[in-house]
Amino acid sequence: MSLNSFGHLFRVATWGESHGPALGATVDGVPPGVAVDAGMLQHWLDRRKPGQNRYTTQRQEPDQVEILSGVFEGKTTGTSVQLMIRNTDQRSKDYSEIAEKFRPGHADITYWQKYGIRDYRGGGRSSARETAARVAAGGLARAALDHLAPGIEIKGYMVQMGPHKMNRDRFDWDQIEQNPFWVPDAQAAGDWADYLDALRKSGNSVGAVVEVVARGVPAGLGAPIYGKLDTDLAAAMMSINAVKGVEIGEGMAAAELTGEANADEIFMGNDGQPVYSSNHAGGILGGISTGQDVVVRFAVKPTSSILKPRQTITKSGEATEIITKGRHDPCVGIRAVPVGEAMMACVILDHLLLHRGQIGDAGGKIG
Amino acid sequence: MSLNSFGHLFRVATWGESHGPALGATVDGVPPGVAVDAGMLQHWLDRRKPGQNRYTTQRQEPDQVEILSGVFEGKTTGTSVQLMIRNTDQRSKDYSEIAEKFRPGHADITYWQKYGIRDYRGGGRSSARETAARVAAGGLARAALDHLAPGIEIKGYMVQMGPHKMNRDRFDWDQIEQNPFWVPDAQAAGDWADYLDALRKSGNSVGAVVEVVARGVPAGLGAPIYGKLDTDLAAAMMSINAVKGVEIGEGMAAAELTGEANADEIFMGNDGQPVYSSNHAGGILGGISTGQDVVVRFAVKPTSSILKPRQTITKSGEATEIITKGRHDPCVGIRAVPVGEAMMACVILDHLLLHRGQIGDAGGKIG
Amino acid sequence: MSLNSFGHLFRVATWGESHGPALGATVDGVPPGVAVDAGMLQHWLDRRKPGQNRYTTQRQEPDQVEILSGVFEGKTTGTSVQLMIRNTDQRSKDYSEIAEKFRPGHADITYWQKYGIRDYRGGGRSSARETAARVAAGGLARAALDHLAPGIEIKGYMVQMGPHKMNRDRFDWDQIEQNPFWVPDAQAAGDWADYLDALRKSGNSVGAVVEVVARGVPAGLGAPIYGKLDTDLAAAMMSINAVKGVEIGEGMAAAELTGEANADEIFMGNDGQPVYSSNHAGGILGGISTGQDVVVRFAVKPTSSILKPRQTITKSGEATEIITKGRHDPCVGIRAVPVGEAMMACVILDHLLLHRGQIGDAGGKIG
Amino acid sequence: MSLNSFGHLFRVATWGESHGPALGATVDGVPPGVAVDAGMLQHWLDRRKPGQNRYTTQRQEPDQVEILSGVFEGKTTGTSVQLMIRNTDQRSKDYSEIAEKFRPGHADITYWQKYGIRDYRGGGRSSARETAARVAAGGLARAALDHLAPGIEIKGYMVQMGPHKMNRDRFDWDQIEQNPFWVPDAQAAGDWADYLDALRKSGNSVGAVVEVVARGVPAGLGAPIYGKLDTDLAAAMMSINAVKGVEIGEGMAAAELTGEANADEIFMGNDGQPVYSSNHAGGILGGISTGQDVVVRFAVKPTSSILKPRQTITKSGEATEIITKGRHDPCVGIRAVPVGEAMMACVILDHLLLHRGQIGDAGGKIG
Repeated sequence: MSLNSFGHLFRVATWGESHGPALGATVDGVPPGVAVDAGMLQHWLDRRKPGQNRYTTQRQEPDQVEILSGVFEGKTTGTSVQLMIRNTDQRSKDYSEIAEKFRPGHADITYWQKYGIRDYRGGGRSSARETAARVAAGGLARAALDHLAPGIEIKGYMVQMGPHKMNRDRFDWDQIEQNPFWVPDAQAAGDWADYLDALRKSGNSVGAVVEVVARGVPAGLGAPIYGKLDTDLAAAMMSINAVKGVEIGEGMAAAELTGEANADEIFMGNDGQPVYSSNHAGGILGGISTGQDVVVRFAVKPTSSILKPRQTITKSGEATEIITKGRHDPCVGIRAVPVGEAMMACVILDHLLLHRGQIGDAGGKIG
Repeated sequence: MSLNSFGHLFRVATWGESHGPALGATVDGVPPGVAVDAGMLQHWLDRRKPGQNRYTTQRQEPDQVEILSGVFEGKTTGTSVQLMIRNTDQRSKDYSEIAEKFRPGHADITYWQKYGIRDYRGGGRSSARETAARVAAGGLARAALDHLAPGIEIKGYMVQMGPHKMNRDRFDWDQIEQNPFWVPDAQAAGDWADYLDALRKSGNSVGAVVEVVARGVPAGLGAPIYGKLDTDLAAAMMSINAVKGVEIGEGMAAAELTGEANADEIFMGNDGQPVYSSNHAGGILGGISTGQDVVVRFAVKPTSSILKPRQTITKSGEATEIITKGRHDPCVGIRAVPVGEAMMACVILDHLLLHRGQIGDAGGKIG
Repeated sequence: MSLNSFGHLFRVATWGESHGPALGATVDGVPPGVAVDAGMLQHWLDRRKPGQNRYTTQRQEPDQVEILSGVFEGKTTGTSVQLMIRNTDQRSKDYSEIAEKFRPGHADITYWQKYGIRDYRGGGRSSARETAARVAAGGLARAALDHLAPGIEIKGYMVQMGPHKMNRDRFDWDQIEQNPFWVPDAQAAGDWADYLDALRKSGNSVGAVVEVVARGVPAGLGAPIYGKLDTDLAAAMMSINAVKGVEIGEGMAAAELTGEANADEIFMGNDGQPVYSSNHAGGILGGISTGQDVVVRFAVKPTSSILKPRQTITKSGEATEIITKGRHDPCVGIRAVPVGEAMMACVILDHLLLHRGQIGDAGGKIG
Repeated sequence: MSLNSFGHLFRVATWGESHGPALGATVDGVPPGVAVDAGMLQHWLDRRKPGQNRYTTQRQEPDQVEILSGVFEGKTTGTSVQLMIRNTDQRSKDYSEIAEKFRPGHADITYWQKYGIRDYRGGGRSSARETAARVAAGGLARAALDHLAPGIEIKGYMVQMGPHKMNRDRFDWDQIEQNPFWVPDAQAAGDWADYLDALRKSGNSVGAVVEVVARGVPAGLGAPIYGKLDTDLAAAMMSINAVKGVEIGEGMAAAELTGEANADEIFMGNDGQPVYSSNHAGGILGGISTGQDVVVRFAVKPTSSILKPRQTITKSGEATEIITKGRHDPCVGIRAVPVGEAMMACVILDHLLLHRGQIGDAGGKIG
């Protein structure tokens, strides 16, 4: 009943604090024979690495991942894989003030109320640095998926920054890697840059909405009830720091649809597989994948570490004002994109293994 | 790794199909000495019972719960509690057509693709009847909460039906039990009645948004990372049939806020407990409860069993049209209200027990 | 983290008390398409049914199992299977005395100390009646094994009653079903009958050693570390009422062997599979099956419900003497045989599913 | 469903191979506020460190443990604790031969058959080096027990080496730390020294029986069924490398007792707590602790890495002979003593936390 793990058969337990010696992930249930090395995982880590442009924290964290176990001569052995990332650039002094004050909107106060002790340096365990371990584990999951089910593509991107939504009519996959916001809309990228520059200079921050899509997921993955594919995706995304909402397919907007409008009509495709007239379901019906794109969105709240003064209290209960200096992300949603991709990869792999285990090839054919 | 269970220490495994002999819940980790009887659980079950007004299915399901284990002389013994509900009114003939055709927007096709066999009668395991077992287990969780932490109040209500949102300025707790929609807004109740009447007569259905609030939850509940209170709530709500989105506090709207606007400022209350200027966080920071109201919302899609003809295919892959006769809910969101309450009760109790186990009284005081 | 379940992917949660309305097992992770009906499960239940000869309790318990979910038209659907056994012959008055007194060697006192409440009727949850649910679940596991891996044979038998051990030189499989003790040694069966008759008449009871063998288990099952095949078998057997010791292969006697004597030498068989010169390992090396017979033994202590007077105390702490009337097994080891078989079947199936899930066909060939 | 973890609330996942860069344990569910540092854990690690006398392998492994997370300013924070031990002295060449040959009695062949790949250097994951991580985690569990339930003492010792059993009449606690075998019998220590010297010189090895006792464990710990205290202890001990049998209290000998002899009679002690005339139960009744000493024994088979030639096969299936050079323990049971203590500490702590969580102070009083 590990409360610091996620996944069923493919199980990831992350550990480590922002300013401890290291952080990492213990990954259990890895299929054997998967070709993987540190470089393959580093590729994904570098995408969330801070300090790459002016829109993310200027902390210099090389985030070099080491594989300490479970890989032999370039292949996974089927035993647990330990992924470790050393913490380097740690200006603890930046955090001295928050040792006594609780940042509004931050976990400072709840960690204290729960545990009676907390590592206040950089948020300790509640720091978004924890997500580096997820991204490393997600890279391992991607390698395993490529080995077991080639053709599954997982892609994340931002669809909204603050009040500004991208224009779906301009959706362009090729744009995603072309701008610092991973937004598939060149014009939005430009507008958002201006918006975020002004916000950053004012010492404020803002939220965002990230969408993650998995293409090529076979039909039949998911385990009702309660290990539904959408249930596990909702838990995976909501477990990411600062996430306040999760949507599958139509998400909250499904409330506004009639049954007639919401029902994705079914036809037979030329390849003998079912095709759908639409994908309101986000690729999941009854907790099981349909074979369509699996579409998940999540909202990331603005970081609470800002230069705007806010009213708060100290551990001893005195009223005070707080301004959080230090180097923080004006929009943490940007770096949440590779994290969302990683969680998607872990959940899809987990359910692929679960399906192999309980069902094997018993699934039903159509036609 | 039960995929048919939820919860950690307080663990609920539901079982049963819509048209099998019975369905129920096996509840593990129940604290001993809790006063409970079938009547107390029946109270909650009756709230989701169909056929109570013209806005829910006219199926007659008495949904009588029996306690088969774990209770002795009116008190829980600490051993597993088995809650069983016999299935009665079963017009299997109503479902003969869908044995061969897949309802668009329904789990028919994915269950077939996953398992190669399915109990098509009334949706079998994918039927919303499964939620009756959740409500019974939720009643048990409420009794345990009253025993261990008196004063926690859990209340669910609808805030949106189709495109029609309630008016928060008219929010009135006393209205919730006064209308068939459990909406805390008398005017909305009237408008929705007209809207749903028309929709029902047209053989269509519609979605809804349900909000569930837990008041009096102590600060410190939740287990980062990944057994966060919000993570478990997101999983619990997303696991409910037809749910497509889950929000905590501001939810998806958090994306539009600045850090300055989102940060709930902290003050000391007269009772020596922290108070907050607002509750954008929905009572949870860093996955741990703050002591404010825990606020969760979820969107329920419209039922896919409608009288509107839709294009689909048969098991043999032939194109066809389907109209789902039978007695279906025009808005399943209505009956999702007591289900959401039940899930909230189970999750809060589970985390209360987890906190007692790992933390005990080590939590930090303020002031 | 259900504490009332065992298994990983194939997961069994038993519930119910000796004198409640019913007891049963909620079985999760059942593969779909397995042909099974109540009669097939009843076959195994009848083997542990009491009152079949003078060596077991004379309680009349028909132990009729009902399948309430997860089976449709004679086949498993892949959803949870609920197995229920109604309690019938319940002479609660027989147990009135032990409501206040603690039986030495029984769970009476520990259940009271743990829970502060207990169902004293027939031992409540601590009654060996709970094992009926295990046998029903084991029958389901056997059916799934026959479906997925035909040729696995699981057989249990007694090898020792009190101080009397069977003679291995007379080992005869065909004898097992020929005597009330399931001992593969006709002469031992006769001797034990005389011994147990005398013991029973004196109002005493005695322990036993049961051995369970699984033949035809493929090499490669088991998940080091800690889901080893032997670890899970040890837990499964130790969880049976009254079991105090578990052995794999040589068991405790392995301590007396030298490395030279203990090492089962390896050769190639005519079928291209490895063969071994001996099976000190009991078919398990490093927690993984070798393909040899999986051999487990467990010791069952004598029942503590005897007619011999013993010194004890009451709930109020007063010294007293107790004689337990009622109809008890003089040697509970006899009825533990089918229970041990059931646990073996569940563990083997669970690890077969786990292996399919994580490993698939990645296992290594020899030659 | 981590298969590389043990424990429920206090959960330990070990990772690492014998000749990888490092190995360790990820420990979840640690209570906060526990004073601990690397030195405290090192104390226990040093007890199992090899090369301390001529009866253990002469490998030089400093086994220095590092705490990478979960401890801040000398106290546990309640977040996951990562314990890492770097591998140093690695003469991989010693193991070159076994890359192609399977050692009889060793996991070489089963790892290959399961995974199709294995780290053959020093046994990789199947190496007893893995137990170093357990001992480190056990040290953490001891510190938590001292913090939460002072007065619990956990002690392990050898009671048998090969055919030679200690003499219980000479049992002397003070002797345990006085001899290389941790045997509480000075005369046995001398005899065993001579016996093992001869065995070692002959290139052979031998098994042993280890007993672990926990004193001061409160009554009421354990969670029937299936998280029984004895079930979890059996699993914990059987999961240790080379263990083939586990006993609680009388263990296998319980089979020889009558109910009259086996029933530990109950009396009231002067302190108002129950006392027992004997402890055949090993401190556990119905899976729940009685308050008496918890007594567990386990048998360790002889190491299969010996200088005696044995017949075996190669990966390609050719018959061959093998002699395992290198520096191996003539009796691995010696170093299993601190490992058994560590497992006992982890299980007791886990059940203490579980009891706090589900039961709190609801337990029943006597008198």
